[in-house]
Amino acid sequence: MQIILLSGGSGKRLWPLSNDVRSKQFLKMLPGRDGGQESMIMRVYRQIMAVDPKASVTVATGKKQVSSIVNQLGDKVKICVEPERRDTFPAICLAASYLRDVQKVPEEEPVVICPVDPYVEHTYFQMLNQLARLVSEDSARLVLLGMEPTYPSEKYGYIIPADREQISRVETFREKPDLETAREYLRCGALWNGGVFACRLGYLLEKAHEQIDFEGYGDFFENYGKQKKISFDYAVAEREESLLVVRYSGDWKDLGTWNTFSEAMEGSTLGRVTLNETCENTHVVNELNVPVLCMGCKNMIIAVSGDGILISDKEQSSYIKPYVEEMTGQIMYAEKSWGSFTVLDVQEDSMTIRVVLMPGHGLHYHSHEHRDEVWTVTGGEGEALIDGRRLPVKPGDVISMPAGCKHTVYARTELSVIEVQVGREISVEDKQKHPLPEGDGKQ
Amino acid sequence: MQIILLSGGSGKRLWPLSNDVRSKQFLKMLPGRDGGQESMIMRVYRQIMAVDPKASVTVATGKKQVSSIVNQLGDKVKICVEPERRDTFPAICLAASYLRDVQKVPEEEPVVICPVDPYVEHTYFQMLNQLARLVSEDSARLVLLGMEPTYPSEKYGYIIPADREQISRVETFREKPDLETAREYLRCGALWNGGVFACRLGYLLEKAHEQIDFEGYGDFFENYGKQKKISFDYAVAEREESLLVVRYSGDWKDLGTWNTFSEAMEGSTLGRVTLNETCENTHVVNELNVPVLCMGCKNMIIAVSGDGILISDKEQSSYIKPYVEEMTGQIMYAEKSWGSFTVLDVQEDSMTIRVVLMPGHGLHYHSHEHRDEVWTVTGGEGEALIDGRRLPVKPGDVISMPAGCKHTVYARTELSVIEVQVGREISVEDKQKHPLPEGDGKQ
Repeated sequence: MQIILLSGGSGKRLWPLSNDVRSKQFLKMLPGRDGGQESMIMRVYRQIMAVDPKASVTVATGKKQVSSIVNQLGDKVKICVEPERRDTFPAICLAASYLRDVQKVPEEEPVVICPVDPYVEHTYFQMLNQLARLVSEDSARLVLLGMEPTYPSEKYGYIIPADREQISRVETFREKPDLETAREYLRCGALWNGGVFACRLGYLLEKAHEQIDFEGYGDFFENYGKQKKISFDYAVAEREESLLVVRYSGDWKDLGTWNTFSEAMEGSTLGRVTLNETCENTHVVNELNVPVLCMGCKNMIIAVSGDGILISDKEQSSYIKPYVEEMTGQIMYAEKSWGSFTVLDVQEDSMTIRVVLMPGHGLHYHSHEHRDEVWTVTGGEGEALIDGRRLPVKPGDVISMPAGCKHTVYARTELSVIEVQVGREISVEDKQKHPLPEGDGKQ
Repeated sequence: MQIILLSGGSGKRLWPLSNDVRSKQFLKMLPGRDGGQESMIMRVYRQIMAVDPKASVTVATGKKQVSSIVNQLGDKVKICVEPERRDTFPAICLAASYLRDVQKVPEEEPVVICPVDPYVEHTYFQMLNQLARLVSEDSARLVLLGMEPTYPSEKYGYIIPADREQISRVETFREKPDLETAREYLRCGALWNGGVFACRLGYLLEKAHEQIDFEGYGDFFENYGKQKKISFDYAVAEREESLLVVRYSGDWKDLGTWNTFSEAMEGSTLGRVTLNETCENTHVVNELNVPVLCMGCKNMIIAVSGDGILISDKEQSSYIKPYVEEMTGQIMYAEKSWGSFTVLDVQEDSMTIRVVLMPGHGLHYHSHEHRDEVWTVTGGEGEALIDGRRLPVKPGDVISMPAGCKHTVYARTELSVIEVQVGREISVEDKQKHPLPEGDGKQ
């Protein structure tokens, strides 16, 4: 099975654990196989492998997510990076041209496209296999998975099938309805549209070329920013005549709000949390290293991270977005391809950060115009490169880098560094990258 | 008026804002005169001065509180430091011998003794003046202030007066009663015992010498640890025959729990807090520099500091103590005589701290056996002394101090330093103090 996972979304609704660089699909809060925690993307990947160990998975995503995907799935998946975010039609077309031109996938091969963040049962992935089979048998040009509704929801689009069979011809699509209309849809056997499609790779390329002017993947990638934002539903599915839908009646949850997310957690707490015996139906996630004490909390969601603290009634937690949008703040924690950083302290003229580099990784060779930096190595071993000079580093070593000094550090073992930035204009924009000196092959 | 303020108490009940080094009386959360915030001790001192601008105030306290008192009240009050905590009788006797031997207060002078943390009206302090006057007129040897009860409380001791007059002879004292007995007391016109007494200084010394074997203040101070823990009520008041009580019927609140404390706050929030419109009767205090978002919170107390996070139903918040006693943790913030420190990060082999020194102040000259330290100056100017060598310091300067290196720093202007400690055994015990080199008169 060729599968394209669409990994989009900002992190507003699961604030303060998710943010612009850490979307909800990367939060390791779901119960994993070995008693540990796994993220949505780790769970989905594990479920795909359980159904089809030879499945080839491509994640279509923005560049901000690449580090998290690599950190969580390593090189097990291919990543098709969108230069900027568009809607699903351009994203799927880019992934299709990536599969053909970069991965050399034959055009007749069936491809399944689905979002990266549904919380579903094993049978969902068995049905993806069925979708691919229906495509390869030429039952239709495009095959959809429709979710059996459990209530008349106003927040999903609907697929209206021709009948109530397990596999049906699609009559039409409907936008998110009001409650009364949703009830009517349910009476007619309508299905939720969960954005899951299967077709041949060549079909995707044909639709792409019909609507977008591009030669191949490289050309498409370069002009990606010019594409208009349009969904695959609107651009393709709703116009297709040869269209089937397969019914899926298992669990299908969108863990997009704290309320739904908490239902998927194994216990009621993660991290340093004490709930006294008067608490009821309360979920607490604490990423900080300080204790959280909850007393008499009923039906609440509490989420604590370096970015902020949410204390909400479960029902209210669905309405978080506008409040979070008003908050502009320093991102306090981020996973990077080379490791992670945690902001410890922000003052007017200084910032203190803990940087952790994974073994074998290093930073870009760079300098800053407006700030001095000081590294104190607190753990691990490695090698720094400072204005062309190489220095071994170990715990207790200190390196001062005045403004303009070119610097990087490379980790032999997991390397922890406290970085103090001092200057009047501290910003992520003040970073000049430099080529490594000749003969230096690190990184 | 000579007044002794008893400043005791650990910080358990107002966790996580109060802790072992920051008792509740120092939390700046009450509305102050100039639109800012003031602490209980600042408020009480201001109220005393309003009634008697010439009042002489002595705070009897443990050594952990000295820095906070100096930081909040400067040299406006005298401080009598108990070498270790005993009960109120030894504390009052020590303060009495301090007043006579150190402050040279005449023995015939009336002294008023009261706790530092009642939240009361202006008239309370006018009545303290009245107590002192009754003592100087020899109306009785010991005069008490009794609080007119507002409900049959089981958590206070009671004073049973001979009649219902404004000033009465005391019939007897009663321990904390059960509810039924408390109701009975109220019917008889009993008063709450708030631990407020007035008598001549000589009376205190006479009672001290009757029960404690000591010569003068120095001798008492040195043997203070041997004193048995006994309250002034039990040791003195309950045995005194010449005893009056004066009725006080104004507000008298013990802001000892979050529930009562929140009632004295001016608004419902302090710090970076958003309460959405569905929150009701909820108070939030946030000392961290990250946003707190509350949605749908009803009748709650939320308190956030570097030490931890409390999220509690208001009524439940009175039962916090046993939970807090189980939490043993690094103290994350402390005021010191020289400034303050904030712990930013604790790892297995390192700790990162922000140190702020007030102008004109310095640290002890010291060294550590088991850890290296690195200072990065992030703000202000001063002078460091490193193994006998003096160095001017300014923002961006870095000083490395390997284990064994003697060091201190002195602030000319407010000086901010990020200190990184690196070593396997980081503890407050690993600190060796050294005399300053000859000819160095700093500190």
